[in-house]
Amino acid sequence: MWVRNAWYVAAWTHELEAGRIHARTIIDQPLALYRAGNGTIVAFEDRCCHRFAPLTMGRLEGDDLRCMYHGLKFAPDGRCIEIPGQPRIPQSAAVRRYPTAVVGSWVWVWMGEVGAADPATIPPSVALDDPVYRLKSGQIDYAAHYLLIDDNLLDLSHLSFVHENTLGLDMPQWADSRPRVVPLARGLRMQRWLRNHSPRGFMKKLGERLDVWNSYDFLFPGVFLQRTGFYPLGTAEANGGQEPQTPPLFHRLDEQVVTPVSNRVSRYFYAAGARVGDIDPDRLDRLFAVTETAFQEDKAIIEAQQKTIDREPERQMLPTSLDAGPTQFRRLVETLLTA
Amino acid sequence: MWVRNAWYVAAWTHELEAGRIHARTIIDQPLALYRAGNGTIVAFEDRCCHRFAPLTMGRLEGDDLRCMYHGLKFAPDGRCIEIPGQPRIPQSAAVRRYPTAVVGSWVWVWMGEVGAADPATIPPSVALDDPVYRLKSGQIDYAAHYLLIDDNLLDLSHLSFVHENTLGLDMPQWADSRPRVVPLARGLRMQRWLRNHSPRGFMKKLGERLDVWNSYDFLFPGVFLQRTGFYPLGTAEANGGQEPQTPPLFHRLDEQVVTPVSNRVSRYFYAAGARVGDIDPDRLDRLFAVTETAFQEDKAIIEAQQKTIDREPERQMLPTSLDAGPTQFRRLVETLLTA
Amino acid sequence: MWVRNAWYVAAWTHELEAGRIHARTIIDQPLALYRAGNGTIVAFEDRCCHRFAPLTMGRLEGDDLRCMYHGLKFAPDGRCIEIPGQPRIPQSAAVRRYPTAVVGSWVWVWMGEVGAADPATIPPSVALDDPVYRLKSGQIDYAAHYLLIDDNLLDLSHLSFVHENTLGLDMPQWADSRPRVVPLARGLRMQRWLRNHSPRGFMKKLGERLDVWNSYDFLFPGVFLQRTGFYPLGTAEANGGQEPQTPPLFHRLDEQVVTPVSNRVSRYFYAAGARVGDIDPDRLDRLFAVTETAFQEDKAIIEAQQKTIDREPERQMLPTSLDAGPTQFRRLVETLLTA
Repeated sequence: MWVRNAWYVAAWTHELEAGRIHARTIIDQPLALYRAGNGTIVAFEDRCCHRFAPLTMGRLEGDDLRCMYHGLKFAPDGRCIEIPGQPRIPQSAAVRRYPTAVVGSWVWVWMGEVGAADPATIPPSVALDDPVYRLKSGQIDYAAHYLLIDDNLLDLSHLSFVHENTLGLDMPQWADSRPRVVPLARGLRMQRWLRNHSPRGFMKKLGERLDVWNSYDFLFPGVFLQRTGFYPLGTAEANGGQEPQTPPLFHRLDEQVVTPVSNRVSRYFYAAGARVGDIDPDRLDRLFAVTETAFQEDKAIIEAQQKTIDREPERQMLPTSLDAGPTQFRRLVETLLTA
Repeated sequence: MWVRNAWYVAAWTHELEAGRIHARTIIDQPLALYRAGNGTIVAFEDRCCHRFAPLTMGRLEGDDLRCMYHGLKFAPDGRCIEIPGQPRIPQSAAVRRYPTAVVGSWVWVWMGEVGAADPATIPPSVALDDPVYRLKSGQIDYAAHYLLIDDNLLDLSHLSFVHENTLGLDMPQWADSRPRVVPLARGLRMQRWLRNHSPRGFMKKLGERLDVWNSYDFLFPGVFLQRTGFYPLGTAEANGGQEPQTPPLFHRLDEQVVTPVSNRVSRYFYAAGARVGDIDPDRLDRLFAVTETAFQEDKAIIEAQQKTIDREPERQMLPTSLDAGPTQFRRLVETLLTA
Repeated sequence: MWVRNAWYVAAWTHELEAGRIHARTIIDQPLALYRAGNGTIVAFEDRCCHRFAPLTMGRLEGDDLRCMYHGLKFAPDGRCIEIPGQPRIPQSAAVRRYPTAVVGSWVWVWMGEVGAADPATIPPSVALDDPVYRLKSGQIDYAAHYLLIDDNLLDLSHLSFVHENTLGLDMPQWADSRPRVVPLARGLRMQRWLRNHSPRGFMKKLGERLDVWNSYDFLFPGVFLQRTGFYPLGTAEANGGQEPQTPPLFHRLDEQVVTPVSNRVSRYFYAAGARVGDIDPDRLDRLFAVTETAFQEDKAIIEAQQKTIDREPERQMLPTSLDAGPTQFRRLVETLLTA
């Protein structure tokens, strides 16, 4: 039911305070996360091997973690190194350890076989403190299966309806035209021009009418790495509808990732912003507030959709031309599940 | 488990505001209800055929309804008439539509095969604005299966105990004698004289002692149409215990209906009152307040009964002579279920 | 799943007020409890045999109980003695009655076959008004299976960790040494010396260093009868590590019992105190407050442990030398379950 041999985002790096044990759950597996002295992040299954007390109720002793029910102590590699009042420690006394890595500002955890973990396969996201960009970040939980959120991110036609008054009002093209879909190793690339867009708010200064190049990579389990370039009207035509090679007037960045917590809970991490020169902190605040409003709109419709699905799980959806992205991506997930 | 080929009450007519989509659930089927321009009521399954977003989160555009996830639009007959960015609309693009009818002040929805719907079979209830009566109406939800509420309405002996201090104090006969039970096409008729009743409150002006003729039809799924006539002492005897042919001193009307929402939720719609000349608005307020108190008493005992049943669903109840009505009606429901 | 042929504690005697019907649940069986005129306690299944309304919503009429749905009346032995409007009462009209007994200040109910109930097998606990002791009592509900609480009480090594700052700080021996375990008919006796203990608070007046004799009987379903004697340093040595025959400087009493309410709820009744001469009411208040804080600590870790177990119920715990008591006791419970 879950793809285990995969990297999942557990947290923003700034969430993990030194000296504290943090509880997170990924694909139904509760984890105990903490920073070791050398800065690496330790991820244990949140379950003492002795009598199954949660390790997140334990105590850090240097780089080791002591369970505070009966006092068993574990090294960062998961081995039990102390059982009170018992000199011999059996080989089997250990808690499960998960490989971790930090890329950009996300803490990734490998939920599958330790030997198969390769940090080189982690998607390259931009760190929040990258000097090129001015970014804000947040997170939200959805009471829905992660693939419903993936569907949402793979069919941006919903911007014209769900976000009619927040993101979509000026761009009926989100629904009326279809992006180009390019397969990637573990995902899809979605690209399109949105022509003759009339910007609102502070974006008006860029021009009354603009062409917008929208491109994102969407990767398992729900990594959304989007660049949106705002160009002078006519740029789309001049490029023959292809990817532009010139720098945009305004370069917006959106990086998001969906983490399945359980079958009906998913955590959504997101950052949004633009190049430092494109936006000042006040305008970023406004852009970000609109973005977060849109996520609340997504949450409402997706959670309602989940409830409707759950009433009669065997019912068949009606495929339309809108569903090219979601359909291809779900086929990829099927492949990963059977692998 | 549900009788599908049946009319169920979805709402009081005054609940359905023009220009709004209303969510109701009947026999586990979520519905989206709205008024079309010609006054007819449209009832759709509350599920877009595309990706199962609820239509109650959609938008009315004239008499049509647009799903506000990806923008599919549906005519009042359920056919999809627009898919954004897609010229061809497949035949199968449609949402399920349910026949509706208004009788009295209740909005009825036929939950079965469209072809089998016959509004002529809807029980004839009195409208709230009927000039003959002065009525008040309300509704309440029970956390119980609808048949437990039906049982309650089919054995009024409970008035002497559940409603001892509200309705039953002066009439131990509710428990001590048994009504005549007459089978009807889709229900039962229950009739009886309650003799030598000593009325309370403003009813005292009718006489120190009265004979009371109580008669109600009880029809699937839980329609309770009751007339109670208050007569001079001796009328029961004079009529040889049969139905009186003379008009009563006071004529009370109670019309109620139970709608199964789900296995453990039922909605109970009720109206109570008397002939205009029998009662003024103040006294109606008092009569109605007592009636609503009684429904709270019913709710408490029925919900507790449901919980007790659910602990061990296979346990067998002890039949008594009190159970003639409930037993016959449940046999009728069995027949409808197997039909 | 439950041991039925056993006595369980339903309540403290002072909880059961005369003239009232009390609802309690033991091993998933809801009970209606009341005091009869002769002081004995009547325990019925909380379910009228007629249509399963709860008897706790009924009314006491002398020593009899009337169901307030349709009016059936039951004698203290469970037989139905009245059905309104029906002269003949069938033999099968009865509610289930459970044997009861009061020992000390606990009300015990026998949940199995009536014929097998023997009050002589009830463990002998001290009454709260026993003149020898000054005691306080309380109760708390755990969202956990009773055997997890039993495990906790059978392995006091947890005092060093769960109660590090409340009970365990001065006695690392709780974890570092092991008690003697002696099998009893329906439980275990656990005994040990804790040597060279440095007391805190008002206990300091007994001496800078003390030897502590800790002994408790633990009996099915979770009866914990503990005596703790504080002795001059050297007493353990002088007794060769055996049970002391001399009276202690301070004699603490702890009596507790766990009642399984359902699979995931358990009620924990407890009393704590010391001999009247050992402690004044103020100091008892302090001792008791610390004890109750410790129970909150237990509740937190046990409920978290239960949740972790429930995620993957088939996972195997790692046995250690700490688990001698819990393991032996669970073997005894298995024997009782198969009996």
